[in-house]
Amino acid sequence: MQQFSNNGDTIIAPATAAGVGAIAVIRVSGMRAFEITDGVFVAKGKNKKKIAEQDSHTIHFGWIKEGENTIDEVLVSVFKNPHSYTGEDVVEISCHGSIFIQQQILQLLNRHGARNAQPGEFTLRAFLNGKMDLSQAEAVADLIASDSSASHDLALKQMRGGYSSEIKQLREQLINFASLIELELDFSEEDVEFANRKQLAELIGHIMSHISNLISSFELGNVIKHGIPVVIAGRPNVGKSTLLNALLNDERAIVSHIAGTTRDTIEEEIVLSGIKFRFIDTAGIRETSDAIESIGVSRTMEKINQSPVLIYLFDVNESTPASLRSELEELKKNVHSTNYKVILAGNKVDKKEHEKLKNEFDGFGEVVFISAKEKLNLPILTKKLLDEINLSHTKHDNVIVTNARHAEALQHTNESLQLVLEGLNKKLSGDLIAPEIRNALYHLGLITGEVTNDMLLANIFSRFCIGK
Amino acid sequence: MQQFSNNGDTIIAPATAAGVGAIAVIRVSGMRAFEITDGVFVAKGKNKKKIAEQDSHTIHFGWIKEGENTIDEVLVSVFKNPHSYTGEDVVEISCHGSIFIQQQILQLLNRHGARNAQPGEFTLRAFLNGKMDLSQAEAVADLIASDSSASHDLALKQMRGGYSSEIKQLREQLINFASLIELELDFSEEDVEFANRKQLAELIGHIMSHISNLISSFELGNVIKHGIPVVIAGRPNVGKSTLLNALLNDERAIVSHIAGTTRDTIEEEIVLSGIKFRFIDTAGIRETSDAIESIGVSRTMEKINQSPVLIYLFDVNESTPASLRSELEELKKNVHSTNYKVILAGNKVDKKEHEKLKNEFDGFGEVVFISAKEKLNLPILTKKLLDEINLSHTKHDNVIVTNARHAEALQHTNESLQLVLEGLNKKLSGDLIAPEIRNALYHLGLITGEVTNDMLLANIFSRFCIGK
Repeated sequence: MQQFSNNGDTIIAPATAAGVGAIAVIRVSGMRAFEITDGVFVAKGKNKKKIAEQDSHTIHFGWIKEGENTIDEVLVSVFKNPHSYTGEDVVEISCHGSIFIQQQILQLLNRHGARNAQPGEFTLRAFLNGKMDLSQAEAVADLIASDSSASHDLALKQMRGGYSSEIKQLREQLINFASLIELELDFSEEDVEFANRKQLAELIGHIMSHISNLISSFELGNVIKHGIPVVIAGRPNVGKSTLLNALLNDERAIVSHIAGTTRDTIEEEIVLSGIKFRFIDTAGIRETSDAIESIGVSRTMEKINQSPVLIYLFDVNESTPASLRSELEELKKNVHSTNYKVILAGNKVDKKEHEKLKNEFDGFGEVVFISAKEKLNLPILTKKLLDEINLSHTKHDNVIVTNARHAEALQHTNESLQLVLEGLNKKLSGDLIAPEIRNALYHLGLITGEVTNDMLLANIFSRFCIGK
Repeated sequence: MQQFSNNGDTIIAPATAAGVGAIAVIRVSGMRAFEITDGVFVAKGKNKKKIAEQDSHTIHFGWIKEGENTIDEVLVSVFKNPHSYTGEDVVEISCHGSIFIQQQILQLLNRHGARNAQPGEFTLRAFLNGKMDLSQAEAVADLIASDSSASHDLALKQMRGGYSSEIKQLREQLINFASLIELELDFSEEDVEFANRKQLAELIGHIMSHISNLISSFELGNVIKHGIPVVIAGRPNVGKSTLLNALLNDERAIVSHIAGTTRDTIEEEIVLSGIKFRFIDTAGIRETSDAIESIGVSRTMEKINQSPVLIYLFDVNESTPASLRSELEELKKNVHSTNYKVILAGNKVDKKEHEKLKNEFDGFGEVVFISAKEKLNLPILTKKLLDEINLSHTKHDNVIVTNARHAEALQHTNESLQLVLEGLNKKLSGDLIAPEIRNALYHLGLITGEVTNDMLLANIFSRFCIGK
């Protein structure tokens, strides 16, 4: 991605997924979108007007032609600026969904002067043309990537405004004070204070507490977006892999396998009740040696320390309350994180009487007795899991930060605001406070794109797919 | 596919390729398409009219909602019957290209009364509603599957009418005579002849020669559609695999690997000058034993017998005119097909002087001297290949049958017409000729779908992709 000013290039890309489908859509955007389309499109029927003369949001049937050679029968949708996705003139060509035809049409458009779009370039233009702010643009990519109800809802909320308006509001209030303080600098000889220091301190306290809430929501937002890690641990042969497979095969679960994240652990994404989990089976690690010892392996430790929940599985036929107690103590010794929940699950209950079990492991609080093999009581286990997750996060109801870039910018904003507060407490003069307020404004502005730079934009939009 | 009458069901399916893209399109077709869309779509802006009240071929921006819960921001395209692909009321919902969102919208539409479409059901409806004949409908699937310029052109030609109109015309002429003969049957007591026997014989001769041309074009049509098989044969270590790889890596070639067609031979699809070839490397077969013997292996023999062209490769450094002559004689003995061309290619010329070579193998006609390793003279080889193909097929200029079903129907038509001709020669009466004319009409009608039955339709449309 070389340039970020809208330089009049007309860009094209397939907008639909690669592969064979009934139809495919090719998107054309830019000053010459209509002219270029007119050069390759012949409308069928009486309406022979040029594309530019057609009404916006209308569809036209005809052929893509190169001279006498017909490439395809297509529908052409016309969107006139600013009423389009990018804010520019846009044409969407709906052709037959063969890769060959798409290539032919793209190459023909190339020859007529359109350039192939970079990843995310349509959305970049939408941002540059003021159709959406930066945080909304980022949400478009999140929305397309979302694969659970929870991550979808968060992305959609962000795309439709989300906390953008809130951030903009906070920033405006801060700008008002900043301008008063900047004004003081002009009159610095006269020792005046246009900005009420008490009100400023109150405002900053208010903004900081607001931002702190947003920052702390990121922990949840991040796991909702990428999946909540849940480690399945336990001694060898207690059925860890069987449990993972049983959860995977459960019809209600939407599954995808994460290939090659680490070689030692198996991770599987499973969506339960609209929330994505990343189940981590530690079974792969030194299955033959002692399980507790194997948990000590640094990678597993890392996983456990990152996971808010751990399912500790034991074999009800092999375990006694005493052996289980010593295992759990061993586990506790090896895990450094203090911020995780353990769900105890007794496996292989198909071989043992249920009532007896309950009495036997009475001292361990709530134990879920399951049979991974027979898929017995698995809904109870997943319900327990969902409860544990929800319990620790009910405080974040509405506004949740899911974007690491935003979280970082918020963090930097608060660091600057902290320095401003300290300056105010020390009764520093305006010229000493002003730079830190500017810093805070800068970081806050990065989120919505009111402050931006080419490297930031390149970084954000290069992660998009082609055609968006 | 259970029913073939248009029973008022409203059907839905994703129309774009599966996978993640910028956008995806969901197609809704049927009597209740507008009503069902209205139940889930909330337009943005002032234009709050119902879908049914909007103009055809217009696009509307808004949200897909389930109650208060927003699923996505979408564009909705409205096509009013009969001006749509299916001829019914059609809505195309252009949503964000996430699989999750598509599933959500499809499930929501299900809950509002739409049924998931069977493969090809949209095109089936287009056929049932008279938007296209059966041969055109079949061409839609061919068009989507086409991956070379030649197969694309044939499919497009067929979709836009192709020989449909010709077949219809021939059939009509035949129907005229048939009705006259049927009329004779009503007056059979009176021994009249309404149908001029001489004219009928002339017409049938005319139709049969026309149909024969179509039938013989199928050989070419079929290979254009599925790729022209070209066997690469020769002794071990002459560089057969290297040649195949060199052709594959040539930048101008569009390549796809055919997995698992046979385990003994390697097949690769390569598009050269818009024509698809299936190169068959026989190198996998008993590479250690004698090559000519290995060619005798039945599978290779089969391949050679099916291929119009064989590239016989020899190592110019190891071969003498005498050894090459004996290899070619051995080959001729083992190949039963008489209808194939042999292109002689001398490989590894990088190690030998070119002029010397030309003299040495002077007696073999045109030999192409190449170096597969150094990619030397490969364009000459491919040009030679294209020449050989075109040479044998220049007679088929325009109308080419690509569909096995059509070829079979044409064959049956001509068989019936042959019986009619024989009957006319024997001066048989109308009641003995009429049934065979009816048979010919039946088979001819199957091509365009003027005659049809449920099994035929099921067979044709079940091969379509979902959403088409």
